Amino acid sequence: MNLLTFDNPAFRYFAVTAVLMIVKMMSQGWITVFRMVKVNGGFRYPEDAKQSLANPHPSPEQLLPNEYVERSRRMHQNDVENIPLFLFVGLLYVCTAPSDVAALGMFSVYVLSRFAHFYVVLTARSHEARATLWTVGSVIIYVMAGTVIWDVLRY
Amino acid sequence: MNLLTFDNPAFRYFAVTAVLMIVKMMSQGWITVFRMVKVNGGFRYPEDAKQSLANPHPSPEQLLPNEYVERSRRMHQNDVENIPLFLFVGLLYVCTAPSDVAALGMFSVYVLSRFAHFYVVLTARSHEARATLWTVGSVIIYVMAGTVIWDVLRY
Amino acid sequence: MNLLTFDNPAFRYFAVTAVLMIVKMMSQGWITVFRMVKVNGGFRYPEDAKQSLANPHPSPEQLLPNEYVERSRRMHQNDVENIPLFLFVGLLYVCTAPSDVAALGMFSVYVLSRFAHFYVVLTARSHEARATLWTVGSVIIYVMAGTVIWDVLRY
Repeated sequence: MNLLTFDNPAFRYFAVTAVLMIVKMMSQGWITVFRMVKVNGGFRYPEDAKQSLANPHPSPEQLLPNEYVERSRRMHQNDVENIPLFLFVGLLYVCTAPSDVAALGMFSVYVLSRFAHFYVVLTARSHEARATLWTVGSVIIYVMAGTVIWDVLRY
Repeated sequence: MNLLTFDNPAFRYFAVTAVLMIVKMMSQGWITVFRMVKVNGGFRYPEDAKQSLANPHPSPEQLLPNEYVERSRRMHQNDVENIPLFLFVGLLYVCTAPSDVAALGMFSVYVLSRFAHFYVVLTARSHEARATLWTVGSVIIYVMAGTVIWDVLRY
Repeated sequence: MNLLTFDNPAFRYFAVTAVLMIVKMMSQGWITVFRMVKVNGGFRYPEDAKQSLANPHPSPEQLLPNEYVERSRRMHQNDVENIPLFLFVGLLYVCTAPSDVAALGMFSVYVLSRFAHFYVVLTARSHEARATLWTVGSVIIYVMAGTVIWDVLRY
């Protein structure tokens, strides 16, 4: 049976949540760009501190780390460490033919935990809130991983 | 209908462009290795500045950041932030049954923008050229993401 | 023919090895957390050096880099640069309908090389051991990539 087709509701749920996560992670790059423009600094490439159309008054200080920009880079790094794992384990999880409700629950809780994590880090809330939300996403990845192994070992 | 098979031309186009991007990103690691060997420094692990077959004359300065090596690491990081998103959204895009021409256009423009981005960063061209090429790749990811959502919501 | 189903033994082998790599990479984040708790430092977010339930006696030194923690972060970064490529090229390799033996060999050598790499970096063994094991994983990714291209070009 072919489960990786949009005729399968679980795969449609997965596709929507996967796209939300892809758009979120791609947009984190734009948030970093926005912040570099706003503070006119936090650059990393030496050529960015040279005179150009986008930088008419360059200075060497533009290459110093800027916490406002670095926060967005750390958020991006957190995406890089988590989102590709969700995308891949979610795809394999769909191959275990979960019930539509289970799939919808798994994917939507993950996405909600990540968007809440995004908000909490962006606004520099407490470490406890950040850690809790990251743990929720992490547990969902482990549960989906376990489900895949369990399903495969039955063959 | 099963679209994730090499009988489907759009999936064949995707497989070729995906492999090109995978080989590119894997090779960035080798470029970093090549640069570390060339400058005999820019290492990150303390154990790399100890005497060994590959490092007969170690010194603590080998652990200092070296811009020639760091540039390759930043290029690798840019791949890490972008290529897995292309791989995944491209796979989902194939599931929307795009026309062969649309799929070929989307994938080939992305690959060309990434290889041009590689050249522009490697040779430290202007920030404007780098930003424009990254934007092209980013827009293609957003367009494929939007197409997937649009297609799924029709069901 | 649909190859991306658990009826196909090669895809089952892939799913198990993919899950092992996903669990490994997810767990590296927990190893970093464990090490930060153990040394009570190596934090990156300014809000983590504020008083809270998890941090009753904060100090600004908790934000300084700590090599014990940084090693785990570098291991995580190495995963980020390698494992998504394996996951994706492995999926495409299954689409080339490899023999079960070839698939099992390719996937299991990759996983063994990565777990050995994990042990060697965790215990700070010689650069030569680390480089050799990374090379093994890298070669397997190139071989699978070449097989995909070769298979697609026959159509």
